[in-house]
Amino acid sequence: MSKGRMIVCDGGNGAGKSTVLAAIEQHLRRQGRDPVMTREPGGTPIGEKVRGILLSPDTPEMLGITELLLFAAARAQHVREKIRPALEAGKVVVSDRFDSATISFQHYAQGLPLELVTQINAFATEGFKPDLTIVLDLDPALGLERVGTRGGPLDRIELQELDFLKRAREGYLAQANADPEGFVVIDAAQPLEQVIEAAIAEVDRVLSS
Amino acid sequence: MSKGRMIVCDGGNGAGKSTVLAAIEQHLRRQGRDPVMTREPGGTPIGEKVRGILLSPDTPEMLGITELLLFAAARAQHVREKIRPALEAGKVVVSDRFDSATISFQHYAQGLPLELVTQINAFATEGFKPDLTIVLDLDPALGLERVGTRGGPLDRIELQELDFLKRAREGYLAQANADPEGFVVIDAAQPLEQVIEAAIAEVDRVLSS
Repeated sequence: MSKGRMIVCDGGNGAGKSTVLAAIEQHLRRQGRDPVMTREPGGTPIGEKVRGILLSPDTPEMLGITELLLFAAARAQHVREKIRPALEAGKVVVSDRFDSATISFQHYAQGLPLELVTQINAFATEGFKPDLTIVLDLDPALGLERVGTRGGPLDRIELQELDFLKRAREGYLAQANADPEGFVVIDAAQPLEQVIEAAIAEVDRVLSS
Repeated sequence: MSKGRMIVCDGGNGAGKSTVLAAIEQHLRRQGRDPVMTREPGGTPIGEKVRGILLSPDTPEMLGITELLLFAAARAQHVREKIRPALEAGKVVVSDRFDSATISFQHYAQGLPLELVTQINAFATEGFKPDLTIVLDLDPALGLERVGTRGGPLDRIELQELDFLKRAREGYLAQANADPEGFVVIDAAQPLEQVIEAAIAEVDRVLSS
């Protein structure tokens, strides 16, 4: 049985995550693999319920620590119920966001202490780390502009101000700098075909390693 | 302005918590106080949404760590949004369950490590402790029997086996033994009038101290 691998695609809203994830799935299926496509927050029935609370625009009073603990709750269930069993079965797991988003949003953007965020995340994941996190890097001003053309209303997190999103972007870049083996940054301002091509090359690299 | 106080009423299902809480509220109102009556999990709009996830009978796959983190998320919001502001305004806060339930259920009954439960709880509460926790102590077999006569279907947590509830009971008694100033145990097998009388005497004692 082949060794399971977990690849995360992360980055700000509007960076093309959904399209890149769909292209990665299609690529893996063409290779005859049966990838487990998942997302955070969510990925399990319980996690999707938590996602509903996290993204609901009707509770702007949600505090950073509450958000952190809700993300952690959903992630704890996600890792144990879905990700680990899939990896143990030799599958490729591809997740739309994972712990990198928590570090970027809750620490860098919200300002919660790094140690607190890291500790709660470690409780949730039991120290589990993805094989690769692909960061689609984009100026948040451009990202919000792109999201605006998608038609739907912005959700609670999308509504949070640009400055906040800029700090989150710095968080992704800082994490990638600190862990060049676990992260790769792709310039998402490029034409989408090039972003997809670069992402797929990274996926192939990890799967062949 | 008088000093705010927080009193928790806790204990197994069927021990008479709701009735005792209603009697405490009535007693406080007769004294001219305007108590803040609240509950866990819940107590805030976000907390009530989390309560819905925690008590839903349709997700028996929920893991202990997920449960712990969801309780913590609801509690973090509860302490900061509702309890602390009420205490700072000199109010009496009366809560149907609080952190004692997490220690009893997640550590003693579920078997999660005490250090983990204590640490996550401390993150959620920032170390905040109620002035008094009243434990209504009852043999869980009798408690479940009483709940059965209430008519409604048992919720997910109530459905968990008796053995589990017995370990939770031991947890309440152990906490009370370890902290005789912060806890009082009332024998809930007594006639309800006596339970109420004992609980109200404890409330008056704390409020006059």
